[in-house]
Amino acid sequence: MTPDPLISLDRASLHAAYAAGTLSAASVVALAYRRIAALDDPGIFLHLLPEAAAQAAAAALPPFNPARYPLWGLPVAVKDNIDVAGLPTTAACPAFAYTPAESSPAVARLLAAGAVILGKTNLDQFATGLVGVRTPHPVPRNAFDATRVPGGSSSGSAVAVAQGLVSLALGTDTAGSGRVPAALNNLVGLKPSLGAVSTRGVVPACRTLDCVSVFALTVPDAWAAFAVMAGEDAADPFSRGIAWQEPGAAAPVLRLGVPHRPELDDEAGRAAWDAATRALAGLGVALEPVDLSDFHAAARLLYDGPWVAERAAAVGSFAQAKPEAMHPVTRHILAGAGRFTAVDAFRGLYLLAELKRRTEPVWRRVDALAVPSAPNFPTLQELATDPLGPNARLGTYTNFVNLLDLAALAVPGPFRPDGLPAGITLIAPRGADARLAALGARLQAAAQPRLGATGGRIAA
Amino acid sequence: MTPDPLISLDRASLHAAYAAGTLSAASVVALAYRRIAALDDPGIFLHLLPEAAAQAAAAALPPFNPARYPLWGLPVAVKDNIDVAGLPTTAACPAFAYTPAESSPAVARLLAAGAVILGKTNLDQFATGLVGVRTPHPVPRNAFDATRVPGGSSSGSAVAVAQGLVSLALGTDTAGSGRVPAALNNLVGLKPSLGAVSTRGVVPACRTLDCVSVFALTVPDAWAAFAVMAGEDAADPFSRGIAWQEPGAAAPVLRLGVPHRPELDDEAGRAAWDAATRALAGLGVALEPVDLSDFHAAARLLYDGPWVAERAAAVGSFAQAKPEAMHPVTRHILAGAGRFTAVDAFRGLYLLAELKRRTEPVWRRVDALAVPSAPNFPTLQELATDPLGPNARLGTYTNFVNLLDLAALAVPGPFRPDGLPAGITLIAPRGADARLAALGARLQAAAQPRLGATGGRIAA
Repeated sequence: MTPDPLISLDRASLHAAYAAGTLSAASVVALAYRRIAALDDPGIFLHLLPEAAAQAAAAALPPFNPARYPLWGLPVAVKDNIDVAGLPTTAACPAFAYTPAESSPAVARLLAAGAVILGKTNLDQFATGLVGVRTPHPVPRNAFDATRVPGGSSSGSAVAVAQGLVSLALGTDTAGSGRVPAALNNLVGLKPSLGAVSTRGVVPACRTLDCVSVFALTVPDAWAAFAVMAGEDAADPFSRGIAWQEPGAAAPVLRLGVPHRPELDDEAGRAAWDAATRALAGLGVALEPVDLSDFHAAARLLYDGPWVAERAAAVGSFAQAKPEAMHPVTRHILAGAGRFTAVDAFRGLYLLAELKRRTEPVWRRVDALAVPSAPNFPTLQELATDPLGPNARLGTYTNFVNLLDLAALAVPGPFRPDGLPAGITLIAPRGADARLAALGARLQAAAQPRLGATGGRIAA
Repeated sequence: MTPDPLISLDRASLHAAYAAGTLSAASVVALAYRRIAALDDPGIFLHLLPEAAAQAAAAALPPFNPARYPLWGLPVAVKDNIDVAGLPTTAACPAFAYTPAESSPAVARLLAAGAVILGKTNLDQFATGLVGVRTPHPVPRNAFDATRVPGGSSSGSAVAVAQGLVSLALGTDTAGSGRVPAALNNLVGLKPSLGAVSTRGVVPACRTLDCVSVFALTVPDAWAAFAVMAGEDAADPFSRGIAWQEPGAAAPVLRLGVPHRPELDDEAGRAAWDAATRALAGLGVALEPVDLSDFHAAARLLYDGPWVAERAAAVGSFAQAKPEAMHPVTRHILAGAGRFTAVDAFRGLYLLAELKRRTEPVWRRVDALAVPSAPNFPTLQELATDPLGPNARLGTYTNFVNLLDLAALAVPGPFRPDGLPAGITLIAPRGADARLAALGARLQAAAQPRLGATGGRIAA
C-alpha cells in the first residue's frame, strides 16, 4: 500500500481510498497519531487513547461498507463534556471528573456507524465561554494564528479537525460553542435543531438550550455525522424529533436575510463579510437586509438575564461544594446566578416568548439568515486583559439561536485580508437543518475551497 | 308572545325558540335580569350592566342567523379577570382596577358571534384559589348548597350559569379554575389546549399556564363558545394553534384510563365516582386503571414549587406596592414566591420535562383519562378554619393538567347520595379537545340529565 503523500481526512477522500484499497483504517489511525505527535499541541486532547487502543478499535471494525457504516474508519474526537464509556468525563474541571459506564447516545451512534474515537478534547470549563481559554489545561492553539483565541467552548474539537488530526469531532453548542470555534478555524460547525440529537450523557450547560454539534471539514461530512446521531430518545426529556429530510430533498433557500447593519469590529472582518455577501449573491439567492434587533435582545437574556442561573442549576452544587476547583472566570460567571429570583426567571421566559413572536415575521420574509459567525477575532492578549468583554462580543451572532429554537450551520467563508478565517453562519427555524445543509454545501464550494487549516490534507 | 313558563337557557332551547319566534333576545335578557333580581346573590356579579345597556346590545344584534352568529342572543357573563371594553377589570381586587379600551380577543369573538354580555363575575382574587371564597366581595353561593364553597377561582361565572342567569360564562383555568367550580355546580367546564384561545387581555395568573375556559349547561354549548374563540393570535406570545377538528369528526375514545386508586375524601364522593365509572363503562369504552403518581408529582410543582413565583411575576409589583389591598390569603400565597431562586425555577422546568416524558407512555395505553373533577367538597366552615388545606386538596385532579400541556373537559356526573353534584373530568393530550367533547357529550347524556342547578330551566 503506497498512500498519497498528502491525505485529506474528509470522508469522501478516506472512503474513496478505503474503497480503492490505497488506505486502511489502521494506516489512517497511524497517520493521525503521527500528526498528533508532530503537531505537539498539549491543549487539544484532555484524554488521548493510547494508539494501540485506537488501533484495536479500528481492527474490530466490520468490513468496509459505507452504506451500512457511513462513518466507517473515520477518526473522531469527542468534547470532554460528552460521555464515552470507560473514559473520564471532566468538562475541563479535573475535580468534577467521573468515568461513565455508558456512552452518550450521540457517541454510541457514531461508534455504531464505524467511527474510531481517538480521545476527549479540551473546552472552556463546563462549556461556559466562547474563547477556549477558560481551561486549567494548556489552551489549544488556534489553527491559523497561535496569538489568537481558538474559540470555544469546543476549542479542542475544532482545532483537532482543523489540524487534520481527526475527520470529525463532536462539540456542544448552547450559546455558540459549536459555531464560533468553527469560524475561527475555517471549519463547518453544524448546530442541529434543539433536541434532534439526544443530550443524555452530556454535562449540562443550560439544559433547555444544549445541543450536541459536529465539527467537520465539509458540509456533507457534518451532515453524515448528524444523520447518524439524530433520533428521538425517550430517556432524554429534552429530546424532540424533527421531520427527517435529506439536504437533496429540501426546498431550496431562495430568499436570504442578511444583517442590515452587520456588526464587525475590524476592517479585515468587514472585508471578509463583503466578500461573503458577494459569494452568497453568486449563489442566485435574493439577499434581503433584515433588522436583527429583536434577535440581539433575545441574546442578552443568556448572560445578562436569568439563563445564567440555568448554568448554575447544572453545576451549582459542585460549584458550591468546591469553588476552588473551578476556573476563576467560570466561578465568577456562575456566582452571578445567585442574584436572579424565580420571578426573574419567569419574566425572562415571557420576554423570550415575546421576542420569539416578534421575530416570527422575519421567517415569512426570508427562508434563512446569513450572518457573520463572529464579529471579532480576539487575541490571547486581549483575553488576558479582559476575560469577559471579547468573549461576550463573540456571541453576537450565536447567542440568540438556541433561545429562539433555531437551527444553524457555520461554514467557512472568504478569508480576511490578514489571512485569518472568517465564518458565515446560516440560520433558519427549527427543523430546517437539511435546507441549511443544502445551501451550506453550495456556499462552501463557492466561498472557501480550503478545508480546515491544512486544506484537510496532512502528510501521510 | 307567550313563553313557556320554564325556559332553559341552553343554546339549543333558545335557538329553537328564536327560530320559532316564541322568544326574542329582548325577552331572554329581560328574563335573565328578573332571575338575577330574584336570586339576590350579591356575590355573583362584580359589575352587572344596567338592563337597558344589555337590552340595547340585544337590540343591536343582526337578524337571527345561527349559522353566521352561532351564539346569537345568548346572555353571557365574563370572569372579571378578562377584559371587556369599557367595563372595569378588577380581578376581585378593587385597588387593581383598570378600564380597558379594548376587549380581549376571546370576548370580542363572543360578541361578534352574537352573544350579549350581562356583566363581569366574581373570582378568587387574581384567580388564585379553587374555592371561590378568597374575595373581598360576598362569596357567590354554591348553586346546590349555600353552606358549601362555590368552587373557584371562576366562582361567579360558574354559579351564574348553574343558576340559569346566563347561557354561558367565561372563566380562566390555570390550576383548575375552569373545572372545579363546574364540578361543584353541575356544569360543563371546557379547558382548552394551552394557547388555543388567546389570553391577551386576561390578567395573568401563571402566563405560561393560563387558559380562557367556558362554563356551559351542555357540552355542545361549551364547544360552540370554544369554536368561536379559538384561533391563533399573533399578538399573544403564548398563543398556539391546534389542528382544528369538530367533535363529530374526531376519532372516538376507545380506551379510557381511570385512577387505579381514586382519591376521594368522603363516602358520598366515592359512591358518586362508582356511579360515574359505571356510566363510563356503559359508553362502551374499555376502562383501564392507571397509576397517576407522576401526574400528581407534576401537580406539586404548582404550589409547592417555583410556579408560585410565576403568580408573583404577574402581579408582584402591584402586591409589593399595595400589599394591604390584597386578600390576606392571596397575599400570603404570593409572599411565598420570594423563597424561590431562578435556579429553582430551572430545576422545576427540568423536573416538569422529566415528568412529562414519564407520563407519555400513558397516552399510548389509553386515549384519554377520566378522573373525579374534585376529591372533596369543602364547606365554608372548613375554609374558615383552614384557608389552605381544602383548597390545595381540590386541585388533586386539576393542577397537573396545564403543566403537562393537556386538554380537559369537566362534565356533570351522577350526583352524590347527599344530592350534591359530582363532576367527571376527561383529560387527553394537547389538541384532543374535539375528541374529549365527543365523549363528553355522550357521557353527559348518559350520566347526568339535569342541566346546572335549575335543570337549565328558569321561570319565565
